[in-house]
Amino acid sequence: MNKPVVAKAIKVENSPIPGSHKVYQSGTLFPDIKVPFREVCVHHTAREAPLTIYDSSGPYTDETFTPDIARGLPRLREQWIVDRGDVEYIEAREVKPEDNGNVSEGKLAPQFPNLPKVLRARDGKSVTQFEYARRGIITPEMEYIAIRENLRRAADAEVIRDGEDFGASIPDYITPEFVRDEVARGRAIIPANINHPEVEPMIIGRNFLVKINANIGNSAVTSSMEEEVEKMVWAIRWGADNVMDLSTGRNIHNIREWIIRNSPAPIGTVPIYQALEKVNGVAEDLTWEVYRDTLIEQAQQGVDYFTIHAGVRLAYIHLTAKRVTGIVSRGGSIMAKWCLAHHKENFLYTHFEEICDIMRAYDVSFSLGDGLRPGSIADANDAAQFAELDTLGELTKIAWAKGCQVMIEGPGHVPMHKIKANMDKQLKTCGEAPFYTLGPLTTDIAPGYDHITSAIGAAMIGWYGTAMLCYVTPKEHLGLPDRKDVKDGVIAYKIAAHAADLAKGHPGARMWDDAMSRARFEFRWEDQFNLGLDPETARAFHDETLPKEAHKTAHFCSMCGPKFCSMKISQEVRDFAAGLTDNERADIENSHIQSGMSEMSQKFKALGSEIDVPAE
Amino acid sequence: MNKPVVAKAIKVENSPIPGSHKVYQSGTLFPDIKVPFREVCVHHTAREAPLTIYDSSGPYTDETFTPDIARGLPRLREQWIVDRGDVEYIEAREVKPEDNGNVSEGKLAPQFPNLPKVLRARDGKSVTQFEYARRGIITPEMEYIAIRENLRRAADAEVIRDGEDFGASIPDYITPEFVRDEVARGRAIIPANINHPEVEPMIIGRNFLVKINANIGNSAVTSSMEEEVEKMVWAIRWGADNVMDLSTGRNIHNIREWIIRNSPAPIGTVPIYQALEKVNGVAEDLTWEVYRDTLIEQAQQGVDYFTIHAGVRLAYIHLTAKRVTGIVSRGGSIMAKWCLAHHKENFLYTHFEEICDIMRAYDVSFSLGDGLRPGSIADANDAAQFAELDTLGELTKIAWAKGCQVMIEGPGHVPMHKIKANMDKQLKTCGEAPFYTLGPLTTDIAPGYDHITSAIGAAMIGWYGTAMLCYVTPKEHLGLPDRKDVKDGVIAYKIAAHAADLAKGHPGARMWDDAMSRARFEFRWEDQFNLGLDPETARAFHDETLPKEAHKTAHFCSMCGPKFCSMKISQEVRDFAAGLTDNERADIENSHIQSGMSEMSQKFKALGSEIDVPAE
Repeated sequence: MNKPVVAKAIKVENSPIPGSHKVYQSGTLFPDIKVPFREVCVHHTAREAPLTIYDSSGPYTDETFTPDIARGLPRLREQWIVDRGDVEYIEAREVKPEDNGNVSEGKLAPQFPNLPKVLRARDGKSVTQFEYARRGIITPEMEYIAIRENLRRAADAEVIRDGEDFGASIPDYITPEFVRDEVARGRAIIPANINHPEVEPMIIGRNFLVKINANIGNSAVTSSMEEEVEKMVWAIRWGADNVMDLSTGRNIHNIREWIIRNSPAPIGTVPIYQALEKVNGVAEDLTWEVYRDTLIEQAQQGVDYFTIHAGVRLAYIHLTAKRVTGIVSRGGSIMAKWCLAHHKENFLYTHFEEICDIMRAYDVSFSLGDGLRPGSIADANDAAQFAELDTLGELTKIAWAKGCQVMIEGPGHVPMHKIKANMDKQLKTCGEAPFYTLGPLTTDIAPGYDHITSAIGAAMIGWYGTAMLCYVTPKEHLGLPDRKDVKDGVIAYKIAAHAADLAKGHPGARMWDDAMSRARFEFRWEDQFNLGLDPETARAFHDETLPKEAHKTAHFCSMCGPKFCSMKISQEVRDFAAGLTDNERADIENSHIQSGMSEMSQKFKALGSEIDVPAE
Repeated sequence: MNKPVVAKAIKVENSPIPGSHKVYQSGTLFPDIKVPFREVCVHHTAREAPLTIYDSSGPYTDETFTPDIARGLPRLREQWIVDRGDVEYIEAREVKPEDNGNVSEGKLAPQFPNLPKVLRARDGKSVTQFEYARRGIITPEMEYIAIRENLRRAADAEVIRDGEDFGASIPDYITPEFVRDEVARGRAIIPANINHPEVEPMIIGRNFLVKINANIGNSAVTSSMEEEVEKMVWAIRWGADNVMDLSTGRNIHNIREWIIRNSPAPIGTVPIYQALEKVNGVAEDLTWEVYRDTLIEQAQQGVDYFTIHAGVRLAYIHLTAKRVTGIVSRGGSIMAKWCLAHHKENFLYTHFEEICDIMRAYDVSFSLGDGLRPGSIADANDAAQFAELDTLGELTKIAWAKGCQVMIEGPGHVPMHKIKANMDKQLKTCGEAPFYTLGPLTTDIAPGYDHITSAIGAAMIGWYGTAMLCYVTPKEHLGLPDRKDVKDGVIAYKIAAHAADLAKGHPGARMWDDAMSRARFEFRWEDQFNLGLDPETARAFHDETLPKEAHKTAHFCSMCGPKFCSMKISQEVRDFAAGLTDNERADIENSHIQSGMSEMSQKFKALGSEIDVPAE
């Protein structure tokens, strides 16, 4: 079954974002680094430098790049990894029929035709970014990230530091050394499996730009391999920083290979899903051996982080019995069922150190899963959730001692007034390891709109300190997301992440808003479209009301029409104020003294500061 | 031009919300009161009482009601108003050609065919709900509101009081006396013009459910009368509590009459828009006389609240000159232009007491406009904005002294970390008069998605204490909203308002979320659709993946498929826990002591609470 099959060409979206073009910045420590950005040139009348925007879309939006998904992306990190001298090419674990769900030959998804050789740490070596950082080594990945996070701002540029960061430590300018230090402290992770050299390095940490994750994946009910690859490209196009492949059912192994080989974004998985497939979906039949083999299988393919529900301990399970919605995490419920069936402690917990050893050998990051997260407003912040979080804190420290990178998953469904307690407890319990939250959804009443119910919570928890936000699509609770849902989810979460960056006072955040606002004030319609998160939709919405090309240079909009425009009047106010002499200005400022309000002012003073004025 | 024209039948949506039916509750003090609710009956297997949901949709969703928009809605408050004995029928102000923009006969929108007689307070009488409240009178409107806000909860029902209300005073149960007291304190308003007896009374105040406003209105560029009436019905169908008619251009007067006669929701306007039309769009030509006449014209039609930009004082205008986006409020920019052109104080400020006299005679509520609100993240919370807010506080107390109802408008564009300062300052400056905010938008970078950028801010400021949230549609900054945009905006804001109610700990809020969550846990798919804010979309999304009717009774969903469902496993956990003896439970709780983690636990303890573990 391993005979390579040449796949038919699959069409992925590979045009530049409208109105943007791709630019690259080189490294200093590592001159061959080429860090991508999306640049938007504004109209020459603005006399402004182009705006630089963080770019997660990979080479697909570079017009000089021709994708060939049967070949995969350039392996830009491969030489960096090999040059470190602590890895070796090994015989890959052999693919087994059960890896693809024992699918019959005719229904087997084609294997990726250009399988790379597999790398692993040499005996006794630690090849995690965490270990390098602790040893004081600045890797090319770290410089890449420093450049990427600075958004081409000059090191000595003046910055607006206007925000409330709740104790974060965001510097004015990110140096490679700062990246190293944050990774060494465990406050940030660089998900970058040594077998996923196609990754454009990115960082997840509270003192960096807030990131977002998009989930894709087929399921037992529907969806195909072509769709999944295309969804990944589509998700990163609109801003997904990471992508999780949550596939279940058949062909999991082969589809995953295609996704990884074509993904410039880190890929995460939940290995228990595949392990469960290997035991025909019977949770009780899971064993450490099956799970361990699955970890190795996926680590060798290049998965960058694993969600591992090692905190679902036997002792906590009964705490969920009185919940309104019980256990809603798939991984959590599988492990709970296993624990109860065997009356034994969770094998992910008892084998945690062995898991660490595997993760460290490939630099797979931990995403410690919150298997007992609340699935409803009613269950938020309960004993089960927080008991598990305590255990995740314990496991974080063990993983660090083992040299592994760690982030912590968080809820879920949480009303606004209970969100901050989650963040505060996570920071304290887990030693400031990055928090990675699903939403949270701030109400349960809006199926079909959970990208919005959750964007509210995501923006808030991002502000409070969450490092990565896992998106929710409009189809959440209802069905599988299609292209439109993926885009809607990604855009909602880019909004949440950026709103969080602004509120935290990230020094690189506001230049984007300000560029848009200037374009608005000056009626530069084309610039408004191009500067937006989604230029296509902005333009289409404008054209619905004012379709003519001439209207895009008009100094008015459809809301107020040509003779009735507040922005236009504001310009007149500005011109007027600019022409005032000091005397004239003083005259205006004192003008209310001569106004006809003296009688009213007296009445007001007589009322004093009483809120409840007396009845006549 | 005043010859009545019989309008052709206009189709308005008048079906019940799918899965819901209309129920009514009678009054005790006023037995003829019939307060409407939307009731959702869940599947009999749930053994639950039906859920009662606040219903803003008016008779249109009552299947026994046949709309006839040329006749208008039943005038349910008329007798209450007349029975108070303090009003008289007067000769209506004559409609003038300029009221409809001097439109030629052929293009004149038909006049509403059954114009009611106009009421006004008798000489010297105060007919505002505020005045009645201060005199200790409980009006039928107040009992109606008390019943409406309680959502058919029993007076002695147990309530969950789980929230952070930032000093609000929300009682467990709303009595008519509580409504009266809140109105008398100025902490809540009941927008209900005596010439809009079709209104189903509602309240806007921090200690009640958070409300939302939807804007409709034609403009100089596009849109028609039929669309506007239909949009109003459409907006209240999905949950708009109030509707503002922001029409500009022609036929304003006639279109407004049709809207008011058919609206069970309070209608607000910005009278300066029509006044400006009357002087051909030349702001400098505005006069107090034209404006005053417009106020009377609209008050006699039954507009329930007026946005009045009396706080845009001459002395503040130059404070906006250095802003990124100047003055973005239309009314604010018109008044700024007038002030500068004449070098005079704003005539709305100098004539404020006369405005109060007009408002009081018809019980039109003030919505004191924030003409200097920020139009970008860059301009939030600046000197101009807060100077105006101080003046709005001054004017609030004058309006109260004059016996008028007042709410205060707020921004606009505000990053998350600056939102609470707006709420705190408004409460303090304006003596707890209700705050009515537009959004705020928490970032400027997402044209096409400003219902989301602003729902984030709206949910937060609603939590902090804003009483009514003015919606923003996806078309904001780009074009005029169509039906889909209106619905998307309303749903996003219902989410924000409900998330705020939950976070404030409103005792009636969580029962809705809990009903949905129980339906989720028990796979009652039909109930999940019917309980949602938008049953049609929820069902359509579900059917995209699982179209078969049988799937709506299936105990699984499309996300995980039939054999792999966390909710199903949770039920097994629940069954297991229920079967445990005390000894067995104790055994489980102690099980981690015997687990294989002793070595790891020791390592963990050795690490202590160090965040930064030492490098090997």
